[in-house]
Amino acid sequence: MAVHRAHLVMLAERRILGAETARLLAASIDGIEADYVLPESLPEGVEDLYFVFERELEARAGAENAAFLHTARSRNDMDTTVFRLALKRALSTTAGSLLRAIRSASARAGEIGGELTVLYTHGQPANISTVGHYLSSIALELAEDLEELCRAIEAVDRSTMGACAITGTGFDVDRRRVAALLGFEGLVVNTYQAISTSHWLVRPATALEDFLRDLLRVAADLFHKSSCEVGLLVFPDALVQTSSIMPQKRNPVIIEHLRIQAGLALGASAAVRELFRAAPWQDVNEVADAPVTSLLETLSLAESAAALFAEIVSKLRADEDRAREIAADFGVTTTELADEMVRRAGVGFRIAHRACAAFARSGGDLKALRETFGELSGRELPFSDAEIADILDPAHFVEVRRVEGGPAPEGLRGARAELERILGRVEAALSARATREVEAARELAGAWRALLSRD
Amino acid sequence: MAVHRAHLVMLAERRILGAETARLLAASIDGIEADYVLPESLPEGVEDLYFVFERELEARAGAENAAFLHTARSRNDMDTTVFRLALKRALSTTAGSLLRAIRSASARAGEIGGELTVLYTHGQPANISTVGHYLSSIALELAEDLEELCRAIEAVDRSTMGACAITGTGFDVDRRRVAALLGFEGLVVNTYQAISTSHWLVRPATALEDFLRDLLRVAADLFHKSSCEVGLLVFPDALVQTSSIMPQKRNPVIIEHLRIQAGLALGASAAVRELFRAAPWQDVNEVADAPVTSLLETLSLAESAAALFAEIVSKLRADEDRAREIAADFGVTTTELADEMVRRAGVGFRIAHRACAAFARSGGDLKALRETFGELSGRELPFSDAEIADILDPAHFVEVRRVEGGPAPEGLRGARAELERILGRVEAALSARATREVEAARELAGAWRALLSRD
Amino acid sequence: MAVHRAHLVMLAERRILGAETARLLAASIDGIEADYVLPESLPEGVEDLYFVFERELEARAGAENAAFLHTARSRNDMDTTVFRLALKRALSTTAGSLLRAIRSASARAGEIGGELTVLYTHGQPANISTVGHYLSSIALELAEDLEELCRAIEAVDRSTMGACAITGTGFDVDRRRVAALLGFEGLVVNTYQAISTSHWLVRPATALEDFLRDLLRVAADLFHKSSCEVGLLVFPDALVQTSSIMPQKRNPVIIEHLRIQAGLALGASAAVRELFRAAPWQDVNEVADAPVTSLLETLSLAESAAALFAEIVSKLRADEDRAREIAADFGVTTTELADEMVRRAGVGFRIAHRACAAFARSGGDLKALRETFGELSGRELPFSDAEIADILDPAHFVEVRRVEGGPAPEGLRGARAELERILGRVEAALSARATREVEAARELAGAWRALLSRD
Amino acid sequence: MAVHRAHLVMLAERRILGAETARLLAASIDGIEADYVLPESLPEGVEDLYFVFERELEARAGAENAAFLHTARSRNDMDTTVFRLALKRALSTTAGSLLRAIRSASARAGEIGGELTVLYTHGQPANISTVGHYLSSIALELAEDLEELCRAIEAVDRSTMGACAITGTGFDVDRRRVAALLGFEGLVVNTYQAISTSHWLVRPATALEDFLRDLLRVAADLFHKSSCEVGLLVFPDALVQTSSIMPQKRNPVIIEHLRIQAGLALGASAAVRELFRAAPWQDVNEVADAPVTSLLETLSLAESAAALFAEIVSKLRADEDRAREIAADFGVTTTELADEMVRRAGVGFRIAHRACAAFARSGGDLKALRETFGELSGRELPFSDAEIADILDPAHFVEVRRVEGGPAPEGLRGARAELERILGRVEAALSARATREVEAARELAGAWRALLSRD
Repeated sequence: MAVHRAHLVMLAERRILGAETARLLAASIDGIEADYVLPESLPEGVEDLYFVFERELEARAGAENAAFLHTARSRNDMDTTVFRLALKRALSTTAGSLLRAIRSASARAGEIGGELTVLYTHGQPANISTVGHYLSSIALELAEDLEELCRAIEAVDRSTMGACAITGTGFDVDRRRVAALLGFEGLVVNTYQAISTSHWLVRPATALEDFLRDLLRVAADLFHKSSCEVGLLVFPDALVQTSSIMPQKRNPVIIEHLRIQAGLALGASAAVRELFRAAPWQDVNEVADAPVTSLLETLSLAESAAALFAEIVSKLRADEDRAREIAADFGVTTTELADEMVRRAGVGFRIAHRACAAFARSGGDLKALRETFGELSGRELPFSDAEIADILDPAHFVEVRRVEGGPAPEGLRGARAELERILGRVEAALSARATREVEAARELAGAWRALLSRD
Repeated sequence: MAVHRAHLVMLAERRILGAETARLLAASIDGIEADYVLPESLPEGVEDLYFVFERELEARAGAENAAFLHTARSRNDMDTTVFRLALKRALSTTAGSLLRAIRSASARAGEIGGELTVLYTHGQPANISTVGHYLSSIALELAEDLEELCRAIEAVDRSTMGACAITGTGFDVDRRRVAALLGFEGLVVNTYQAISTSHWLVRPATALEDFLRDLLRVAADLFHKSSCEVGLLVFPDALVQTSSIMPQKRNPVIIEHLRIQAGLALGASAAVRELFRAAPWQDVNEVADAPVTSLLETLSLAESAAALFAEIVSKLRADEDRAREIAADFGVTTTELADEMVRRAGVGFRIAHRACAAFARSGGDLKALRETFGELSGRELPFSDAEIADILDPAHFVEVRRVEGGPAPEGLRGARAELERILGRVEAALSARATREVEAARELAGAWRALLSRD
Repeated sequence: MAVHRAHLVMLAERRILGAETARLLAASIDGIEADYVLPESLPEGVEDLYFVFERELEARAGAENAAFLHTARSRNDMDTTVFRLALKRALSTTAGSLLRAIRSASARAGEIGGELTVLYTHGQPANISTVGHYLSSIALELAEDLEELCRAIEAVDRSTMGACAITGTGFDVDRRRVAALLGFEGLVVNTYQAISTSHWLVRPATALEDFLRDLLRVAADLFHKSSCEVGLLVFPDALVQTSSIMPQKRNPVIIEHLRIQAGLALGASAAVRELFRAAPWQDVNEVADAPVTSLLETLSLAESAAALFAEIVSKLRADEDRAREIAADFGVTTTELADEMVRRAGVGFRIAHRACAAFARSGGDLKALRETFGELSGRELPFSDAEIADILDPAHFVEVRRVEGGPAPEGLRGARAELERILGRVEAALSARATREVEAARELAGAWRALLSRD
Repeated sequence: MAVHRAHLVMLAERRILGAETARLLAASIDGIEADYVLPESLPEGVEDLYFVFERELEARAGAENAAFLHTARSRNDMDTTVFRLALKRALSTTAGSLLRAIRSASARAGEIGGELTVLYTHGQPANISTVGHYLSSIALELAEDLEELCRAIEAVDRSTMGACAITGTGFDVDRRRVAALLGFEGLVVNTYQAISTSHWLVRPATALEDFLRDLLRVAADLFHKSSCEVGLLVFPDALVQTSSIMPQKRNPVIIEHLRIQAGLALGASAAVRELFRAAPWQDVNEVADAPVTSLLETLSLAESAAALFAEIVSKLRADEDRAREIAADFGVTTTELADEMVRRAGVGFRIAHRACAAFARSGGDLKALRETFGELSGRELPFSDAEIADILDPAHFVEVRRVEGGPAPEGLRGARAELERILGRVEAALSARATREVEAARELAGAWRALLSRD
């Protein structure tokens, strides 16, 4: 209906239709909207809903007049415009849902971000860090994906009205006026491109897949961290399938569900995207009903996956004792002792590394450490036993990592600011779009009233 | 080497290393660069080239001093930084090559853009238009892809130095200083994300695939338009495989080659991208050698595909007679007669449409046209036979389509401006990056000299 | 229910359950089937339907006795068995639907197979042939795919009962007996593999994708052959979208629908298949509900695509005049003249080829032909003008191609026999499976009666 | 050369060429093979090596005679035949390499198969089992994939000679004779299908991908089992990257390499397969050089992945103490206690289950067990403490699982037999093919001698 109205307003404003015809058509359209009830099934011989509308318009305005509404437009540009409006709306909803999921991770970092955990490389415990550092990395990675998705909406948010079949029209239409009345950000300028392009489907699909693929990576890591042998992350009973006979067994089945939901959504999106591999550079049915519907369904699937993720991060707890235990077992803080030797004992990194390696191999024997240090450096190790214990403490490891982006509070400040910048841009873009749409609706309503009252 | 230098400069500036140690290391590095010849094969027991460098540095600066260079860095951050520098360079080259291909299409539109052709929808002749309109639509679609590729370089153009293994370091390093000295646009702030993220590989891969998929769409359409039965586009003999026994057969084998090259490049890129589906959110080998090498090879493949496309569009000619012939056979300008009836004979579009349909069914019988028009509208058709011929002329069809983005010169002006805007942004981004890199190299050289002469 | 019965029969036969307990359980199961009405929604706190059944069984047989039914089985083996039964049934239906589609192509070849058409290579007219030859090639290619699909059902048609969780059971069960009673062709022997394997999902998916990809290739070729400029194949109005204003325009929209349906089904199947890329070699939820449901929906999509294909091939007509016209325009029968020169004028193929090339270049000038032949061979061309005309006749071109698999009736006989062999094997496999299932049901019913009456 | 010879022999045998011409051509071909040295680069104006051969043949046998060799054949059928011969050979090599990898797993099972390990479901410890049971499941899953790959070779092992361009020839050739002389198993009968089909590329690609995807699943599971926290599988130092400073860290980097190699090979194969999505059902360049070369390279990648897997399984060791530890921690043998209650204490499974659950919750308190059992069943638990300990012993858990396909030696016997059956079929197929090729070469040599000596 908005498309009919915006088009009619423009036709009247450009005097392509006479004021009287335009007013009559406008009144009939208002009438249809006010009291016409769509039939439950299509009448015999009528191809789609559009023709039902057209018949009703003919009945009210007369066939001759009704025909004028179709001046300078075509099924091609109307269809892609309607599809773009629907997809734009759905994508804004999806973006909102992804945003909430990322905010959940960020909020949870606020709650338990200072707790210690162990982070891994190549499946092996590597460094001690904090839950906040870890959740921040996830939130940032997903936020970057979300920002891409928001940019992809720009490819959708362009009007194709006035492209008609593919070459535009000889009528002196104003394409930008129609676009503005419909709340679009801009035009697809070239009329052939307007009808043929796949970017409004492919860009959102691709961005969504990138988000989902990262979600799969995160799911795999959460699965590992919450496995019973690792046990760094813990879930409440509600998210875990327990076995009555094996009470230690806590199957975080929700993460498996996330993996499958995200995986299926990823595949469904790729299915739409790959259609264009076999579609020539023309107006093809690949830019029509079936693929659009598929993509809309995929968005719902992706929203469920995002909701599962939000549920998971909101509920996860960290087991700090387990983190300290792994840190001790694998000597993950020993590198910090080496660093302190460089900083405070004035030896090079490689000497410090060798002394610490000997210490580690000895199973933490301080005497071995002092001896090797002496042999390698010709000096005495200037740390007391208590100082060494402090240096090796996981909390110390985190505390000194104040470097930008590191796990200490000073380090994380930068990462948190970066996240806020990205999410801020996302929110600004979403709200600018919403505002533009509201204003366009107001503008259209005003122009419509003017049309009805013009003489 | 640049990474060693930038890191050393920063260590010295932050007084993490003493001036003397730093100067000695700097002099040794200069010495190695000046006169050291890499061995042809790795010495026994040495894992990679980096260790060869380290040994040589130890030989020149002494083991104790050499060790200081490794302060506050790790193989992890050094490797991804080196890979990012290499990929950034390669992507800029690829972007330049895609830009040239698009410029070729645009240049060809300048040469033969005014010639008539027929454009299709759903594989059927739909409208008459110009070669310029068609080439413009292709150039715009590909330019939008290229702009995405350029934006994807931003994901590559971020330094990870200072992230060390994954949690940064306790030394008081300045990550932004190293990034600036290496010519990076910014940082990956969170240190865990810095090492784990796939975006610097996945974003370029995805953008490249979108370009290649559109190239496949274009190839399919060029193939159709240059097939012997359609014959709207013609290629010189050099691009065509001829058969001596079937001289009419002109096999545009170059388009098949384009389809296969682009298809293989698309698949090679997807191969890298899909690796991340099975990689947990950690530092994994998926962000290391083998996938990076694969992606670099894929870029070469894509550049070949772009070069084939440039060759094709530079050489294609339009057969205007064939365009007029198809236009006549399929009555593709009849819609314009209907439009003129609306504009100048004051009837609604649907009545005009019906009269023209009867005209078309009659095989172009003017009498039939006048009769039907009279019956439907109750008026006489106010066009002379000559006027009708003019209206139906393909040139007229194009001429009146002055709407923004349509095929008439006035219409195309907007599309051309849009293309220039996009390509302008692309060029600005590429050249800003190049400038930043040159200036960073200059800054690094200056800081290096300062380091050598400091006391 | 069949799974409960087969399991119970086996437990009783192996005397794992006492006769009395078994009879009581059997009577209760019969009772449930006879008069129990499933609740419309799950009672609070009940996870799935299975537990509803279990409660009812407890109510009827007593909790102590009911518990015995779960001896030596687990949710794991029961679930995959139930899924396999459902998928097997659905795949047989799909295979039947594909078979009918291929039979349609074959039947249409019987009706209009002798009509002439032109066949293409690399998008160019290459040889004259018959509709029968062409349809036979399509039917054979798709039949080979169908045979793969039927073989893939073998991967589904294997029982996992007795694998229990993953390591089987200490009870002395007879896995083959349960498999036989359920109509399975065999077992997945290794109990860990039985629960973890993806082959029963991946094999059918892959085979289906191969069928659909070939359908896409066929659709692309039918689209080309029925395009308005080529016009070798013609569709009745019902399958064509016509334009009232461009009566020559006959948009075979059904082929575009086929392309999209097949493309979406292909993508949906790949979505399930690719799930296993990220699933470890364990019992994972990827072999459970959501992916199985997705695959079942994909089968329906594929059946629709096959039905569209059947509709297309059943209705297509050939335009022989157009075939002769293209053949003449492109001299596609000239190669036959060259062959006849070799056969009957005793010159080598390359001399004949050169003479014919000159003839083609001259635009069919017989004098030019005779002169060049004379120059090249030193002999006179031993064919009269009428003989040459006969040789160049498309019908002659086809008639002499009696080689096995060629377009002449003698040639096609072999291809038709090959098709029948493949489809025969497919039908035999489908019907053997159906028979086995009927006999198993009979056997199970008998064993059940024996159980009820045993004392 | 074999293709030239087989074709010439057939032409002579069918008397399509005269004996003298045939003998002369044969002698010239022998001469070329004996003393002709291929030029290092193609002479100017010569398109490919085939034309170099043709020129040399003309120089030796005379142009007129040389031309006869090209009777009844075309570049189309010759090219696909040559590609099929090359691919068939490469695939046999690949199959051999996959077979060796599977044999490695099977051999390792022979060496350490009896050692205990824990098997997982959904990432959680589920059952105690043996290394042999586990390796057997892997070997069987991969063997099923290998058998598919071998079957896929059948699609390659079919001759297309005699299909000529696409419609065969009017000469009375014997296609089956040429196929037999070249060692092919059969024909692609329909001549149009012979040139257009993708099955000889797609089937092997698909089968390879299924193998590689399963390899990825196995790699993920081995990675988990050998992670430092799980530690059920252990690798020697040579396969592990150690950290001098964290001696407990044992990074099984070879498994990550396997994951990436297999992943890249999977993607490379999919790249070739997906080409056919956009290729019409015609002879297209997708069945020519570039894709064939890509597929051959992919086979090498897959062989490397298989070799990595073989290395991994040959070297892995099991840590039985760790298996017992996990078994105890997670009470994985408690289910066996429940089963024994059913078998020997005459209670139903659910009662036994509840008693054992209470026992598990109590942390293994025998008194709690006896009390709960008494309450639930009204009887006394008829097992002594020592008997309970025996029942709960992991070795007992395995020992009683004698069911077909279970982990006890009696159970594994069936699985081992199944593996041998599959590998036996694979070996038989590979060796039948090799034999056929040797015999065909002998037959061709004999026919060639007969040709040379015929008069």
